Amino acid sequence: MKGTVLYGPGDIRFEDRETPRIERPTDAVIRIAATCVCGSDLWPYRGLQPLDGPTPMGHEYCGIVEEVGSAVRSIKPGQFVIGSFATSDNVCPTCRYGYQSSCNHREFISRAQAPLLRVPLADGTLVPTSGSPSADYIPSLLTTSDVLGTGWFAADAANVKPGATVVVVGDGAVGLLAVLSAKQMGGERIIAMSKHESRQKLAREFGATDVIEERGDEGVVRIKEMTKGIGADSVLECVGTQQSMMQAIGSTRPGGYISYVGVPHGVELNGQKLFFSHVHLHGGPAPVRRYLPQLIDLVLSDKINPGKVFDLTLPLEQVAEGYRAMDERRAIKALLRP
Amino acid sequence: MKGTVLYGPGDIRFEDRETPRIERPTDAVIRIAATCVCGSDLWPYRGLQPLDGPTPMGHEYCGIVEEVGSAVRSIKPGQFVIGSFATSDNVCPTCRYGYQSSCNHREFISRAQAPLLRVPLADGTLVPTSGSPSADYIPSLLTTSDVLGTGWFAADAANVKPGATVVVVGDGAVGLLAVLSAKQMGGERIIAMSKHESRQKLAREFGATDVIEERGDEGVVRIKEMTKGIGADSVLECVGTQQSMMQAIGSTRPGGYISYVGVPHGVELNGQKLFFSHVHLHGGPAPVRRYLPQLIDLVLSDKINPGKVFDLTLPLEQVAEGYRAMDERRAIKALLRP
Repeated sequence: MKGTVLYGPGDIRFEDRETPRIERPTDAVIRIAATCVCGSDLWPYRGLQPLDGPTPMGHEYCGIVEEVGSAVRSIKPGQFVIGSFATSDNVCPTCRYGYQSSCNHREFISRAQAPLLRVPLADGTLVPTSGSPSADYIPSLLTTSDVLGTGWFAADAANVKPGATVVVVGDGAVGLLAVLSAKQMGGERIIAMSKHESRQKLAREFGATDVIEERGDEGVVRIKEMTKGIGADSVLECVGTQQSMMQAIGSTRPGGYISYVGVPHGVELNGQKLFFSHVHLHGGPAPVRRYLPQLIDLVLSDKINPGKVFDLTLPLEQVAEGYRAMDERRAIKALLRP
Repeated sequence: MKGTVLYGPGDIRFEDRETPRIERPTDAVIRIAATCVCGSDLWPYRGLQPLDGPTPMGHEYCGIVEEVGSAVRSIKPGQFVIGSFATSDNVCPTCRYGYQSSCNHREFISRAQAPLLRVPLADGTLVPTSGSPSADYIPSLLTTSDVLGTGWFAADAANVKPGATVVVVGDGAVGLLAVLSAKQMGGERIIAMSKHESRQKLAREFGATDVIEERGDEGVVRIKEMTKGIGADSVLECVGTQQSMMQAIGSTRPGGYISYVGVPHGVELNGQKLFFSHVHLHGGPAPVRRYLPQLIDLVLSDKINPGKVFDLTLPLEQVAEGYRAMDERRAIKALLRP
């Protein structure tokens, strides 16, 4: 089998790798219907995150179950399934609190840009659809595996409620789907921060009521002007840099909520500054498993169409072009078909 | 009039100062019934916070209104009142959200260790009791002005709910009253972290079910052992140092809540560490005004007796001894009577 491997900055190869097989009795192997490139894949691709040798890539996936281990009970061969980028047993106390992405038995999926994928803890990680979804739904179902689940967590963790004024920092696919999620949760005024025309357009389509192009301190000034000087109720930080985090803190009203859902790179928060900002802060790896059943329902009942974030579709063997297009911001997000 | 002035590390003087008078039409002047020394006063007293020349001290107070400005409507001379350490108009959007200590018109009270005090924004800052409370209630009523209000905010901001497992980091007066507050909010298991016998005793009296003496990494290990390896639901950080904050983060379960209510000194939070901890974080200067009516009721209906944190009572002119006793941890908290 061939799969995607990152050798170093800018060096993505689609090459021979061992074919996945059941290794533990709780595993499943699935045949990938679609996978994609994540914004977080770009950190190591850009050399901004160290690599420990050649690294198999990919953690967003959906597809048909090929085989399950002897201890798997609820997942069966032939089912169409979607799983989180983080595996979970879904029964431990942390899972029952809804934080499956911090499950004691968590592993991070990292070989999904391939035709076949081994998924540990299949019963606790995968969610089957009822019946086989038509091909039209595949892109949107694929988003529930991470990018939509993460945008949804951003809105949930930032306490978006009906009537809220919401700011979304970041116009990547997660930011755009955070807009969609905030809209679903009743956000009344949803301000997207974006400089890019195609992303602005999609943000509006997903529910943004305002788009502003300013960033950093200028962005904060603009948000304050738009919110009677006090700041937004909910600010969804979907980037993970020091600048985006400070922009989020500056844009939130005292007592308001900030979520942050991208792994922070080089972010240090000054305790005293955070203290006097009076914000609530919550984030981490999105507990996608908590949201999967609800998000799959929203997709299959045509209430949302998050698959629109894919503005580039490629055969899997052209995965390197998918990375390049996203790196150069020619594409918002690249879908890959084996 | 004489009042308290800090000249430099360890140098508290009780000396002639201008007598407060109405300066703006929204002011009141009150005759102090009791005031006290705050843990936060010890930062500059210990030289850990720079001073900009001789600094009048004190921000916890209650007493009888002497005089009000021409624009004051609800507060009247002769009333017994308690106010927050932070003034507020109590009508702006931030106040209406319950974050009065971030009111646009906020000033920090800083001259309360004196017989008379000018309070700006009297209508929005002061809360009168119905009738004149008997002398026995003065210590407990005084605590509502800051130390209890701050402990209460610690429990509220850390989302203490009935049945919760709660950890309180810090055994100063705020930490002890955070224990009392967590108990009032239904905390089931309340673990106080304290090495000092008299404080341990008061913590148990206020509702702590467990007291542990370990600190830092050892403290975290101990909390994990006591919580089936996952950590506490709510952790109340009542110190404000890097060590206490890291202890709080390490002691909280994924998805759990941390509050921090003392001004952080030298605290820097690593974004990635915070991200993977999966905690909720909320803190800031306690919005005492939000809680004052409720806390005054709890005191006057004998449901709580927070005044027990005062284990030293001094005439106001001996204020310097109050600072010394607290600095040397001979006293938990010193009450001062003009």
